[in-house]
Amino acid sequence: MRKTGIIAAAVFVLVVVAGVLNYTDAPPVAVFVFSAAALGGVAWAIGIATESVGAKFGPAVTGALQSTLGNLPELFIVIFSLSAGELVVAQFSILGSLFANALLVLGLAIAVGATSAEGGVMRFHKRLPNDTATLLLLSVFLIVILGLSDQVGDNASEHQVAISVIGAICLLIVYGAWLFGYLKADIQAGHEPTEAAHTVLPFPWAVGLLATAGISAALVSEWFVHSIDPAVEKLGISKAFTGLVIVAIAGNAVENVVAVQLARKGKSDLAVSVVKNSVAQIACFLFPALVLISLLFTEQLTFVIDPVYMGALALTAIAVWQITGDGEAVLFEGMALVAFYVVLATLVWFE
Amino acid sequence: MRKTGIIAAAVFVLVVVAGVLNYTDAPPVAVFVFSAAALGGVAWAIGIATESVGAKFGPAVTGALQSTLGNLPELFIVIFSLSAGELVVAQFSILGSLFANALLVLGLAIAVGATSAEGGVMRFHKRLPNDTATLLLLSVFLIVILGLSDQVGDNASEHQVAISVIGAICLLIVYGAWLFGYLKADIQAGHEPTEAAHTVLPFPWAVGLLATAGISAALVSEWFVHSIDPAVEKLGISKAFTGLVIVAIAGNAVENVVAVQLARKGKSDLAVSVVKNSVAQIACFLFPALVLISLLFTEQLTFVIDPVYMGALALTAIAVWQITGDGEAVLFEGMALVAFYVVLATLVWFE
Amino acid sequence: MRKTGIIAAAVFVLVVVAGVLNYTDAPPVAVFVFSAAALGGVAWAIGIATESVGAKFGPAVTGALQSTLGNLPELFIVIFSLSAGELVVAQFSILGSLFANALLVLGLAIAVGATSAEGGVMRFHKRLPNDTATLLLLSVFLIVILGLSDQVGDNASEHQVAISVIGAICLLIVYGAWLFGYLKADIQAGHEPTEAAHTVLPFPWAVGLLATAGISAALVSEWFVHSIDPAVEKLGISKAFTGLVIVAIAGNAVENVVAVQLARKGKSDLAVSVVKNSVAQIACFLFPALVLISLLFTEQLTFVIDPVYMGALALTAIAVWQITGDGEAVLFEGMALVAFYVVLATLVWFE
Repeated sequence: MRKTGIIAAAVFVLVVVAGVLNYTDAPPVAVFVFSAAALGGVAWAIGIATESVGAKFGPAVTGALQSTLGNLPELFIVIFSLSAGELVVAQFSILGSLFANALLVLGLAIAVGATSAEGGVMRFHKRLPNDTATLLLLSVFLIVILGLSDQVGDNASEHQVAISVIGAICLLIVYGAWLFGYLKADIQAGHEPTEAAHTVLPFPWAVGLLATAGISAALVSEWFVHSIDPAVEKLGISKAFTGLVIVAIAGNAVENVVAVQLARKGKSDLAVSVVKNSVAQIACFLFPALVLISLLFTEQLTFVIDPVYMGALALTAIAVWQITGDGEAVLFEGMALVAFYVVLATLVWFE
Repeated sequence: MRKTGIIAAAVFVLVVVAGVLNYTDAPPVAVFVFSAAALGGVAWAIGIATESVGAKFGPAVTGALQSTLGNLPELFIVIFSLSAGELVVAQFSILGSLFANALLVLGLAIAVGATSAEGGVMRFHKRLPNDTATLLLLSVFLIVILGLSDQVGDNASEHQVAISVIGAICLLIVYGAWLFGYLKADIQAGHEPTEAAHTVLPFPWAVGLLATAGISAALVSEWFVHSIDPAVEKLGISKAFTGLVIVAIAGNAVENVVAVQLARKGKSDLAVSVVKNSVAQIACFLFPALVLISLLFTEQLTFVIDPVYMGALALTAIAVWQITGDGEAVLFEGMALVAFYVVLATLVWFE
Repeated sequence: MRKTGIIAAAVFVLVVVAGVLNYTDAPPVAVFVFSAAALGGVAWAIGIATESVGAKFGPAVTGALQSTLGNLPELFIVIFSLSAGELVVAQFSILGSLFANALLVLGLAIAVGATSAEGGVMRFHKRLPNDTATLLLLSVFLIVILGLSDQVGDNASEHQVAISVIGAICLLIVYGAWLFGYLKADIQAGHEPTEAAHTVLPFPWAVGLLATAGISAALVSEWFVHSIDPAVEKLGISKAFTGLVIVAIAGNAVENVVAVQLARKGKSDLAVSVVKNSVAQIACFLFPALVLISLLFTEQLTFVIDPVYMGALALTAIAVWQITGDGEAVLFEGMALVAFYVVLATLVWFE
């Protein structure tokens, strides 16, 4: 509780510093670095607050809250990127969150979980990994056929927005059906409240923290997005790397470090649930929702991505299913997932 | 029995109307619409008749008969398309049957079956879905490497007919080996006769219906194929959509509505068997057989297809395996399969 | 023992003949044919010798020895190809070994094993096939994203060597972690010594044979590589076919015929282990090791391959996992794997 307060204060300081740098004549690189760090902190604070708020309601609602609010920073970044016309950053942030969660965070959680598990094998229920694989494959299907049509330049490639919109609606309906069944099964199981991963804050504090963190996420995201252009030019980093790696880790993965902690404590199912829910939600809720939201902007987000990322996404979906679909994972499998991520980040570094 | 007679009579009327329209000066759109509807009806009649004929022999033979005769309309359409030089329609009809069965019909059967099953989970034997996945992957392998070679334009791309012919022979041998093992296991199991999905007709009636329906299928297919060119121009539908969606649903999927009915009655294994057998047969028997048959025509059918459909086919094979390979399926999985189909049909609509 | 001696003598004669042909003015086609045959023989001798040496140490060490020494001929061919600037042959030899083992040898072993197994179903432990699938998918991921980047010609495509080097290091680390866990589990299991597939030679003889065979492998590989250019021109075979089929079968698959023999004797687990270990080692040890070794040469080996082989490799990884991941295989599945290989070899024939 006390530790939580101190970290929360530090995050708040980071946010203020990033804000001061943004509104003064500070070099863009400083704004970029501080707002990226602040984003990570804010993401962590939202995680803590959501969990504490959820503690009042029970595990199913907590899960739903966590998946929805946990992606707030992501959502703000993409929306500000869209309004700044930064389509590359917007799209790569979404993809980056997928890769960071499905490969890096899951890989670390498995590596840590398997190491501390008896016999070196981490065991968990098969259901969620397989459900996530289905959802991810559906989103990959849409992305791949749209992307191939774009590469070929056929007639359909002139209607990418329309096809993306209809596809987005399909994804949202299937995601809704899945979430409904998932929550219902969870409630019917009627198990005892989830043991919180963090210290639980008192309810009013939690609501206050959530509100503050939510507003901070919106502000910091805007500062961050505006600093990207001048900063990456200065630093010589590609926009692809910024979106796919830096934004993804700052906005999403930090929060999910909790999955690694849970894995170390032997809570395999909860660890897998945190990561997998995130992955499913980004692929089948956040991405399609942003495609629909982007209709309000001048630049439309579509599901069309470059072939490299199409291939990476398809193989990620398949590999993650292959590794976790049997409800067991060992050290080298966690390492393999991390290696997938390192290979991808290396390639993107050179883009 | 009486209901069957009335529907059969209605189908016969449809066939006659389509014929009259074809041989008079009727607008091609009318011929197109009526012969598409007649095709659906004829496909249904063949299904009924086959099942009744099969009832005399037992389940294994029925299955073999059903898979073989059930694809008659498909076969005629492709052959008439080939002889009319309509390669696009020929190829897209085959692909469309695959997608319609593997995604739309299977998805509906799962959605309906899971909804009416206890606990919301439809359960079936794992064996057939996994066998079908193997067969489908084999056919996808041939299609993908030929297609990639075609895209790159390497030396092998100048020998597509030769490679397709050898590939077709490989597929047919593997399919034969599979079917032999499958029928043998079925006969050895020696279980009671399959309960028919439809009313069983008396044997002579069934043979008569089969003969009439078979001849009608040939006639209607010809009228249909000849009406396509002027009709799609008038209607503004792409040939891809006609082949992939309209022909597929008319010639193939209607018959398989029986799978959905079986699923609703809780006969999961039979439902899955009807769809999966169709998918396996189209991929590893009908497609290669038509490639060989097309050697007799001036225009040769090959396994080379556009990248969009290569990607769609590969991901369909993987997703269907992922969803059904564990012998269980729930509502959202059925919805996901239907969503795959809707996404694909949407893209093809714009081609 | 006696039979082994006779075959070993015959192999030695073959090596001598190939050497004489190479150093005299013999036509390159003769050198090509005799050194290819000698390579197969040498590969067999290394297999025999390794097994006999290993018999002194126990199964885990034997496995490690076999995987490492069994790929000696492969290693020499690639290194001589690199030093002769024959990048195509080098890369296609590696890929060819993968395809030959994963499709042809595994397919034959399954076909034979299932036929002689009770009930026609070959059964084995699921663990190794799934581990191999993970390793293969990791290597496919690297190959596919690099290859797609190369096709698109983006910025990263100008840094293929750097990305390949980092990727190679990732693969080697994951392979090391896997091998460590695999050997440890094997030693802990403490099972009785593996029954040798061949006659066991006395230890000193075995060491002598190993040394002779190793040196012969180096010599023959050099003769073979130098005869390729003139010979394939004369014979009208493409270099792709030479690397992917002839070198692969000569240098690698012959040794693995032992897997087929083991399968026939009902030793399914050992048969699967021989093939799967080879596949995993080529993909995640030999290929990356050769990429690193090639830094010493003027021509660097990378993971960039043509789209046709990218597609073939990805689908091979998926199909092999699909077929063997459940720990059961039947005749038609073995035939399907062989058919995959025949289809690929046919296409490569026309390159």
